[in-house]
Amino acid sequence: MGASIRIGIAGYGNLGRGVQAAIAKNPDMELVGVYTRRDPSAVVLQGPAPVFHMDDLAKHTGDIDVLILCGGSKSDLPEQGPALSASFNTVDSFDTHAMIPEYFAAVDAPATAAGKTALVSAGWDPGMFSINRVYGEALLPDGETYTFWGRGLSQGHSDAIRRVPGVAGGVQYTIPNPTAIEKVRAGERPVLGTREKHVRDCFVVLEDGADADAVREAIVTMEHYFDAYDTTVNFIDAATLAAEHTAMPHGGFVFRSGNTTDEHAQVIEYSLTLESNPEFTSSVLVAYARAVHRMNAAGQVGAKTVFDVAPGLLSPKSPEQLRAELL
Amino acid sequence: MGASIRIGIAGYGNLGRGVQAAIAKNPDMELVGVYTRRDPSAVVLQGPAPVFHMDDLAKHTGDIDVLILCGGSKSDLPEQGPALSASFNTVDSFDTHAMIPEYFAAVDAPATAAGKTALVSAGWDPGMFSINRVYGEALLPDGETYTFWGRGLSQGHSDAIRRVPGVAGGVQYTIPNPTAIEKVRAGERPVLGTREKHVRDCFVVLEDGADADAVREAIVTMEHYFDAYDTTVNFIDAATLAAEHTAMPHGGFVFRSGNTTDEHAQVIEYSLTLESNPEFTSSVLVAYARAVHRMNAAGQVGAKTVFDVAPGLLSPKSPEQLRAELL
Repeated sequence: MGASIRIGIAGYGNLGRGVQAAIAKNPDMELVGVYTRRDPSAVVLQGPAPVFHMDDLAKHTGDIDVLILCGGSKSDLPEQGPALSASFNTVDSFDTHAMIPEYFAAVDAPATAAGKTALVSAGWDPGMFSINRVYGEALLPDGETYTFWGRGLSQGHSDAIRRVPGVAGGVQYTIPNPTAIEKVRAGERPVLGTREKHVRDCFVVLEDGADADAVREAIVTMEHYFDAYDTTVNFIDAATLAAEHTAMPHGGFVFRSGNTTDEHAQVIEYSLTLESNPEFTSSVLVAYARAVHRMNAAGQVGAKTVFDVAPGLLSPKSPEQLRAELL
Repeated sequence: MGASIRIGIAGYGNLGRGVQAAIAKNPDMELVGVYTRRDPSAVVLQGPAPVFHMDDLAKHTGDIDVLILCGGSKSDLPEQGPALSASFNTVDSFDTHAMIPEYFAAVDAPATAAGKTALVSAGWDPGMFSINRVYGEALLPDGETYTFWGRGLSQGHSDAIRRVPGVAGGVQYTIPNPTAIEKVRAGERPVLGTREKHVRDCFVVLEDGADADAVREAIVTMEHYFDAYDTTVNFIDAATLAAEHTAMPHGGFVFRSGNTTDEHAQVIEYSLTLESNPEFTSSVLVAYARAVHRMNAAGQVGAKTVFDVAPGLLSPKSPEQLRAELL
């Protein structure tokens, strides 16, 4: 093995912490710096690493092989992705599906101009689930693709609950419908509406004096987030919320069900059962950092997605080893 | 879409028929010839296509973009792979795992010299299962990989049964142990011996006057094939064998179970439920033919495996479409 791949982390929230943990599991990588917009001396790390202010990144362009962008998709990445891919090879988890083409273009131009490689939208969805949608469609062109999410805590829906007047705290779990999954798994190719695929389960702490019925009604009728689903609202106290609902499990299923001939149906299933959503996402980012390092060395510059990355590039093993051990 | 990708089929057994069926499902492809070692006029096709003798391939090098090699791994491919990759871009399903490095080298030299691209060992195992073993190991380096096969008809074990004296016919099904699968799925990372992972179920037709107990004993004690497993031998008549055991279902599971931190376990599962093993394998070969055509156009020559092929190359959709629709 050659020299370590030198990784920088930009942004130290759940994802940044997960990236630090993932680097520790990969002996061919080295964490050379955590970059934060906060006061570096105030950042509590979960393991030893140099901490710098984000403004110091410009001084460290020669020290970092791949910078992993751990900010959010709403306001951090749209700004940081295009700016930082002009100076670094980057990996990010931009996950606003509808905005991906625009974000890709915004990152592609500076990265290409600078001879850098920028892998956008890695993680599990977008990411590993997307890869399985592409493989499924390509292998079984006469078929249907189904994606189910959960059982898992949805950050976006939890945030939506907490904005409801009268709510002091709360979380939302997305739960796939087991009957729908069984039909898909059996190769029935059902037509499934939104309400048939998932249910939503909320655990809510009321503010003092709030009207439970009004809160419940406000949640279950909320447009885009809940109105198209069967939603259950459970009221709990703050202690229960803190004790039982701080973990961030998630996961889901991607199915491709199709026919190779009229006589023969085939079903492909990919599923994830994650005790920690951010830690798994971080692990994916770190594996793709290895691929980005190699692609940049091979002259493959500009914005890339998981669709552009050959599986072998993610592994620390050589092509010869992979063929001998894993093919 | 540009001109069709012109596909040739070398060898017309179960796999060749499956490739013909798969090409019919892919509108960007065209079957330009079936090549056989038999008398071309004696080959019964399941759909219209020009049929030629294998010796005519040399005259058709300009007519075929990718030649899909549909022969067997035991004697056909070791000869045909190196010979034909000197004149054609090829895809094959060479599946003798222990011999893959040697086969890869034998194909790589002539393909590289001729500027051709040769994708070896595609299918589902080796193939899609191998890809999932690589992804799993790269995403969860602190973990264990488990591959289970079945429930499915094993050609090799069925052949072994039929070589036992006193056996007139028979098939063998490989069945994964559901208890073992549940433990793996639950993230327990069990240590599983051969006997705990799979059982083998045989359906045997005896020759007239054969001794059932002797046949059973010969099967269950057969080295390499059965002695390490719990094997059940069921005796049936020829009519039942013909009526109930001609389908070729198969499938299986690849799991990666690992920890991102001491606190959090993660489980990745990939599974296939195939009503026709050869038709699914053929579908994989055809999707990889598309990738090979593109890789050759991009100057990526020599022997390749599924580990070297970016997922997007398998899809008829453009990178822009894939990002907008499937990421």
